[in-house]
Amino acid sequence: MTSRKALTEYVSAFTHSLVELGVAAAVISPGSRSTPLAYACMKQEGLTVYRQIDERSAAYFALGMAKASGKPVMLLCTSGTAAANYFPAVVEAYYARVPLIVVTADRPHELREVGAPQAINQINLFGSHVKWSTDLPMPETENQLAFLTRHLHRSVQNANSEPRGPVHINVPFREPLGIDFEQTYESSGDIAHFGGELSLSAESRVFLQNVLKKDRGLLIVGEMTKPMPPEFWEFIQKLNWPVLADPLSNLRGNCPSTTRHLIVDSYDALLKNKEFKEQVTPQVVFRIGPQPVSKPLSLFLAAARPETYVVFDESPMLRDAQSVATHHIQASINGLWQLSLEMKQTNSYREKWTKASSLYWKVVALHSQEELDEGVLAKVFFETLENCDLIIGSSMPIRDVDTFFQSTERDIMMYANRGTNGIDGVVSTAFGVQAAKQRPAYLYIGDLSFLHDMNGLIASKMQETDLTIVVMNNDGGGIFSYLPQSQEERHFEELFGTPTGLTFSDAANMYDAQYVSAETIAQFAAALDEPKTKSVKIIEVFTNRENNVMTHRKLWSRFDEELAKQ
Amino acid sequence: MTSRKALTEYVSAFTHSLVELGVAAAVISPGSRSTPLAYACMKQEGLTVYRQIDERSAAYFALGMAKASGKPVMLLCTSGTAAANYFPAVVEAYYARVPLIVVTADRPHELREVGAPQAINQINLFGSHVKWSTDLPMPETENQLAFLTRHLHRSVQNANSEPRGPVHINVPFREPLGIDFEQTYESSGDIAHFGGELSLSAESRVFLQNVLKKDRGLLIVGEMTKPMPPEFWEFIQKLNWPVLADPLSNLRGNCPSTTRHLIVDSYDALLKNKEFKEQVTPQVVFRIGPQPVSKPLSLFLAAARPETYVVFDESPMLRDAQSVATHHIQASINGLWQLSLEMKQTNSYREKWTKASSLYWKVVALHSQEELDEGVLAKVFFETLENCDLIIGSSMPIRDVDTFFQSTERDIMMYANRGTNGIDGVVSTAFGVQAAKQRPAYLYIGDLSFLHDMNGLIASKMQETDLTIVVMNNDGGGIFSYLPQSQEERHFEELFGTPTGLTFSDAANMYDAQYVSAETIAQFAAALDEPKTKSVKIIEVFTNRENNVMTHRKLWSRFDEELAKQ
Repeated sequence: MTSRKALTEYVSAFTHSLVELGVAAAVISPGSRSTPLAYACMKQEGLTVYRQIDERSAAYFALGMAKASGKPVMLLCTSGTAAANYFPAVVEAYYARVPLIVVTADRPHELREVGAPQAINQINLFGSHVKWSTDLPMPETENQLAFLTRHLHRSVQNANSEPRGPVHINVPFREPLGIDFEQTYESSGDIAHFGGELSLSAESRVFLQNVLKKDRGLLIVGEMTKPMPPEFWEFIQKLNWPVLADPLSNLRGNCPSTTRHLIVDSYDALLKNKEFKEQVTPQVVFRIGPQPVSKPLSLFLAAARPETYVVFDESPMLRDAQSVATHHIQASINGLWQLSLEMKQTNSYREKWTKASSLYWKVVALHSQEELDEGVLAKVFFETLENCDLIIGSSMPIRDVDTFFQSTERDIMMYANRGTNGIDGVVSTAFGVQAAKQRPAYLYIGDLSFLHDMNGLIASKMQETDLTIVVMNNDGGGIFSYLPQSQEERHFEELFGTPTGLTFSDAANMYDAQYVSAETIAQFAAALDEPKTKSVKIIEVFTNRENNVMTHRKLWSRFDEELAKQ
Repeated sequence: MTSRKALTEYVSAFTHSLVELGVAAAVISPGSRSTPLAYACMKQEGLTVYRQIDERSAAYFALGMAKASGKPVMLLCTSGTAAANYFPAVVEAYYARVPLIVVTADRPHELREVGAPQAINQINLFGSHVKWSTDLPMPETENQLAFLTRHLHRSVQNANSEPRGPVHINVPFREPLGIDFEQTYESSGDIAHFGGELSLSAESRVFLQNVLKKDRGLLIVGEMTKPMPPEFWEFIQKLNWPVLADPLSNLRGNCPSTTRHLIVDSYDALLKNKEFKEQVTPQVVFRIGPQPVSKPLSLFLAAARPETYVVFDESPMLRDAQSVATHHIQASINGLWQLSLEMKQTNSYREKWTKASSLYWKVVALHSQEELDEGVLAKVFFETLENCDLIIGSSMPIRDVDTFFQSTERDIMMYANRGTNGIDGVVSTAFGVQAAKQRPAYLYIGDLSFLHDMNGLIASKMQETDLTIVVMNNDGGGIFSYLPQSQEERHFEELFGTPTGLTFSDAANMYDAQYVSAETIAQFAAALDEPKTKSVKIIEVFTNRENNVMTHRKLWSRFDEELAKQ
């Protein structure tokens, strides 16, 4: 039997090590088997505990925190299906390369696979979707702490090493589960760690210096969860290429006025235009970060087949869904800033992009005065944002941002779950981002995605928060209206539109959130203006799926016309 | 590229085969990649399609249907984390031995692990928690149908063979995803199947004949999802042993008056009494079905260590958490009815149980007149039930049923998720049971569990249903008040009680459900009486966690006193 002393020492060493390793937050769901570690978390200095009853939401909350803070976050749940509920967020974390320390309490060996309650086979529970999984020994003896702390070191450093990702630690406990709150823990010394960074090889430097001299080059920047260093902005000034900035590149917010002309924030729209595409076939493409959201961009590159397409990816598992990349540089992007580039004073190729982009935003401005659809509403919303974080739902919202979010100097950081692009867990991710950043956060989300993770709101009952949720309610799956499925009338609404008829004022009431609804631009602007009186404010905007598609198409043809006039 | 003709033929053969193999229902969640199979499901005669937006809830809905119908149910979702959301229900189905045909649409090979959207590694996605997992070939050619239909045969027969369980079929599709709705499918002949049954060996017959002669024997019946055949009732009459009937044995409802004296429905209470336990040490214990819910029973058996403890389990993975069984008969229980037993005319051991049980119910009746707690309220509720199904939440609700549900001739079938005893997915399971049984269903559930699967209610917006939900709202995790954790005041409410302050009238409004709340027995009785006007009726009963514990304890001491007087 585990002595209370040994158990207390074990769990104290556990949480102490995690804090030493840079874990500053734990998200805990209620349960019995996890009691010793839950107590230790509450006791542990330097560890902030967050709580969420639904483990699926808890895991997405942790994911949002880890992504926005850049630090690994601990998850803790009891044994059984509780742990299985973590799976969607674990998968997302794996593909989005977000460090999570997933701790699942387990029954001791004699209660596994024997029909005991809440006992499932937790060994390698998350299969190939964690970087590593370990089953710890029972806290039986007092002399295993050196192993424990070093194994936690391996776990956290594994999660933190690029490509980062989730690790799974399974911890069996035998009853009794109480610990001694008075017992103190003194570390006998943890192992020190020096991390490395994949730097550019000599060959890749030579190659890059040569390639970056060209004029017809595109720099594509995918998701970046941290602001770029000043060196980046110097780098692109010298390069003088169009910088295609994915919404999640975090180049559209905090965008210095001196380099704003380099940032192309409209390529998703521009690359729908056939003539423009033909004019801007690139010679060199250079991508950092994962693939952007934009489908027109993917199609453009797949068709253009640039002779040199360089992808920076710290992982051997190069992200390149069109199999169009020609060079993979497996290194950290920080090496880029050390290249000595000559300043390209002028670049007519880049200017072509800049000019088209200006024209696009003029057309959008005109369009916005005359039409009303999700995009136009989105633009109104984006223009009010400042000193905040914007969390973006999958499906249409991220595309609205791509099309209607113009680069700005205002301080706005953007986050979304694009590892696997799920519509699940988005509400919780937003609460997690807010918890990490501790400043006002905004969630821009569709009705199905909001509904899918309505349980994310439970978090607002368990800790302080400051979140405004803008739900675009078009009663169903709006994105399908843009896909070929919409050409087939049979079963369209049943299988794809899936209208539920649900609206969310009751949800707001249930969670004691502020609620405002809007249907027009004026109402929406007023709703955004309305002072925030609760920790969560929900603005529900009613739109129409069919109208959204029509108006979007109107915008593209208007732009086509204007461009043809040039 | 897949021709539209080949694709149509492939998915038509797929759904046709499933129907031939006895699959009568499919639960579909919206998504793009699954389009061809979703269309085929809609087109397929003999297959009823149910829809649920949240895949986690969809899977529990399918689980409820499969459990209550005894037939495998198909699940279908798109690629990505959608599939990962199935995991909790898949794990439950694995341990509860419920046949599910989990079909996940996938991207084709060239879009796997390359950073494509909504693409995750779906091969063996559910690890050791499915009986089998297969990755089908692309529907490329027209001559692979023989393989496809036979592989589906393997899949469904695998799910259906004892011990039953979930299987996973991963199906890649390449765009375009449309099918030809006019194209007809004619099977070229499926493979015929003759199933087998594990029968009793000659040795086990001899052994059983001998063992069942004894007087001091207990027959324990765990979860049975189908009513027992008439042979069972003859068997127990001859045996004349006390039959300890777990709530899920489905012996407490539909209990013939002629054999009702044999059914012990109070053992969970009786076995809390030390003196009684000493009087009823059994010589032989004989269990069919999984282990009962009752912890007092488990403790009793672990302490009593009967010299012969026979467990019937069709699986080699014998369920016996206390490692107390002495004989494992790996066979179907149907063999039991063929044993020729002599009628035991009298059995004083059995009478001891019957007498104590009568006394217990007398004490409960008195107690119910004087006290008000969840148990007393539960009893009021159970006594109103008739010609319906009762789905029971984990944690306290199943224990309330164990303690307060007295056997009755009324037609009530009971279901719960006891494979892993999770509090997740219970609302959806209830909707699934109702869909399978097509008669009024009642869900008895705690507030945390209801909240965890509030998305289960989405099902009520997508198809007809008839469900009454009784939520016992004690604002948090009531079961922890009965556990040792409650002795430690520090962090108890934060980590275990986890009060959310949430109530559910708004949830009812949101889903257009009828809503009534109650705090007293009279209010509760009136709420139960109130005619049902909507497809979902929610009765929220407010109780108090501390009071529940106190009153439960009062009942035990009252019974102890009465028993001591005998």
